[in-house]
Amino acid sequence: MKQVTLAHGNGGEENNALITGIFYRHLKNEILEKSEDAAIIDNGRLAFTTDSFTVSPIIFNGGDIGKLSVCGTCNDLAMMGAKPKYMTLGMIIEEGFDARVLEKIVRSIKKELAVNGAMVVAGDTKVVPRGSMDQIFINTSGIGEVQTAGISSQNLTPGDAIVISRDIGRHGAAIFAAREGIELESELASDCASLWPMVEALLEAGIRPKAMRDATRGGLAAVLNEWAKASDVCIEVDEGALPVNEEVAGICEMLGFEASALANEGTFVLALDPDDADAAVEVLKRFEQNDAACRIGSVSDAYKQRVVLLSEWGTKRFMDLPTGELLPRIC
Amino acid sequence: MKQVTLAHGNGGEENNALITGIFYRHLKNEILEKSEDAAIIDNGRLAFTTDSFTVSPIIFNGGDIGKLSVCGTCNDLAMMGAKPKYMTLGMIIEEGFDARVLEKIVRSIKKELAVNGAMVVAGDTKVVPRGSMDQIFINTSGIGEVQTAGISSQNLTPGDAIVISRDIGRHGAAIFAAREGIELESELASDCASLWPMVEALLEAGIRPKAMRDATRGGLAAVLNEWAKASDVCIEVDEGALPVNEEVAGICEMLGFEASALANEGTFVLALDPDDADAAVEVLKRFEQNDAACRIGSVSDAYKQRVVLLSEWGTKRFMDLPTGELLPRIC
Repeated sequence: MKQVTLAHGNGGEENNALITGIFYRHLKNEILEKSEDAAIIDNGRLAFTTDSFTVSPIIFNGGDIGKLSVCGTCNDLAMMGAKPKYMTLGMIIEEGFDARVLEKIVRSIKKELAVNGAMVVAGDTKVVPRGSMDQIFINTSGIGEVQTAGISSQNLTPGDAIVISRDIGRHGAAIFAAREGIELESELASDCASLWPMVEALLEAGIRPKAMRDATRGGLAAVLNEWAKASDVCIEVDEGALPVNEEVAGICEMLGFEASALANEGTFVLALDPDDADAAVEVLKRFEQNDAACRIGSVSDAYKQRVVLLSEWGTKRFMDLPTGELLPRIC
Repeated sequence: MKQVTLAHGNGGEENNALITGIFYRHLKNEILEKSEDAAIIDNGRLAFTTDSFTVSPIIFNGGDIGKLSVCGTCNDLAMMGAKPKYMTLGMIIEEGFDARVLEKIVRSIKKELAVNGAMVVAGDTKVVPRGSMDQIFINTSGIGEVQTAGISSQNLTPGDAIVISRDIGRHGAAIFAAREGIELESELASDCASLWPMVEALLEAGIRPKAMRDATRGGLAAVLNEWAKASDVCIEVDEGALPVNEEVAGICEMLGFEASALANEGTFVLALDPDDADAAVEVLKRFEQNDAACRIGSVSDAYKQRVVLLSEWGTKRFMDLPTGELLPRIC
């Protein structure tokens, strides 16, 4: 690698290469190596994570960069079974940025923090000269209190059920539509949402997911491939069961790729004991936006470390880790 | 305020207005209100802070954006009497950035983490299209374990001694010189350094500072003004005692401002019981770069909430909070 390319930020193969080849190589330690959506620190008591947001446009159907920056970090904590509690807010703002828009973003942050029961405890603001960046970038880092230990991408075993919380690909499709000025018949909105209330409801119902992951950059395909590798198993996905909104499917056709590779910002995947799958789907469906929650597949040992798509006609193909850069500045 | 200006990121008056007027107003909570260099969370056990770095040039005499991003966050923890422990690393990189330079930055991060005894436990990397930003921005957030509670800018009382750890203004002067291509007779280097080892030495020597603050954006002037307000006291500074390197003084003349308003990245101010001042200076001087550590003033009730400079000729003037933007992208 000589230069950092857009593909290095795609959440897929090149992104992993950058992380492994430069960051992990120099900074490795026991906690970082085990770190998944968030690091587990303080003897397992706390989860700690960070995320930077560069989304363009900064206001989109279903959210804005403020809402996204809370959801992104709090969701990473929730996926480790941790209740979001403390957040930091690092803003980098371009000179000349509209103060009313900044205030709108801060209001979104406030609103979304309340959904999580979290609070901003420290912040930092940098202003850079006009032209040194595009509008506003936000970093949020968060600390959560672990409610249930041991959730990990390494836990999958043959027989486990794979469940998705709702239809996939909305965030990627909505950002693409907004950027390209595509007129849609209905209002296709990003799925951008906080997942902690759903995780809390699952835990309260006595469900103990083996693994959970929000399918952000790289989409569902990135999550399942990572799990298949981490647990040394095969994940078989029933293609016909994958919930995809009609307009998202239309945008996928235009773009020439799969909804399973599109980013989501309020959609998560669960690996569960098969006996828990129906109960998990029932809990997820209590949330309005999760109408389409369903079981989409199961874990086997057919093709280790691979994800297999089973078509409705009985054919099989691999669902690979996304490569290249589908859409920069998606989050 | 209609637009965010460079002055809103200066660490001075306009910066405070932005923070109070937008961020605190919407996001306020008990912890944020008490938050100084870092927030104290988890019943006083941990300190939590964040900082974003946009410095230009990214490599300068005395450091680079990697070293700076560790020092900045770890120093904020150290200033609250907390030992830096866990750090997150959020990188936003411009497409086309040289991978060797990225690796150099990551090596600097590794080296400086070791000085602090801290580790990176989670990270995030975003790549944005060429032209959407300038090179690389880094956010670091850190968690430290509080070693001594109660350090606060609200603790100052008349009679307290004010001590500075070394000569002031080096970081601001070095960045300015680098950016303007000013040839200097000697090698003026940024003071960029980790402060935890010094704080640890002070605590081990039984010294309990009442307040500590690294004098970053806004320089010494910003720290002292904030303390004077927070503690409702007057801080009297002996102008002749302020240690300023000759080349820094020369650059200040060129720029037309005071060294006390220039940013530092490894220089801190202490408020102490006057009986502790000499011992603190002695401990600070054990560190090579702190040759010039000294007592620079004391706390009184002469002009409440103001900082007074006492000249060598017996005259008095106020040292005000910096306004306007001296130098954007200083850190």
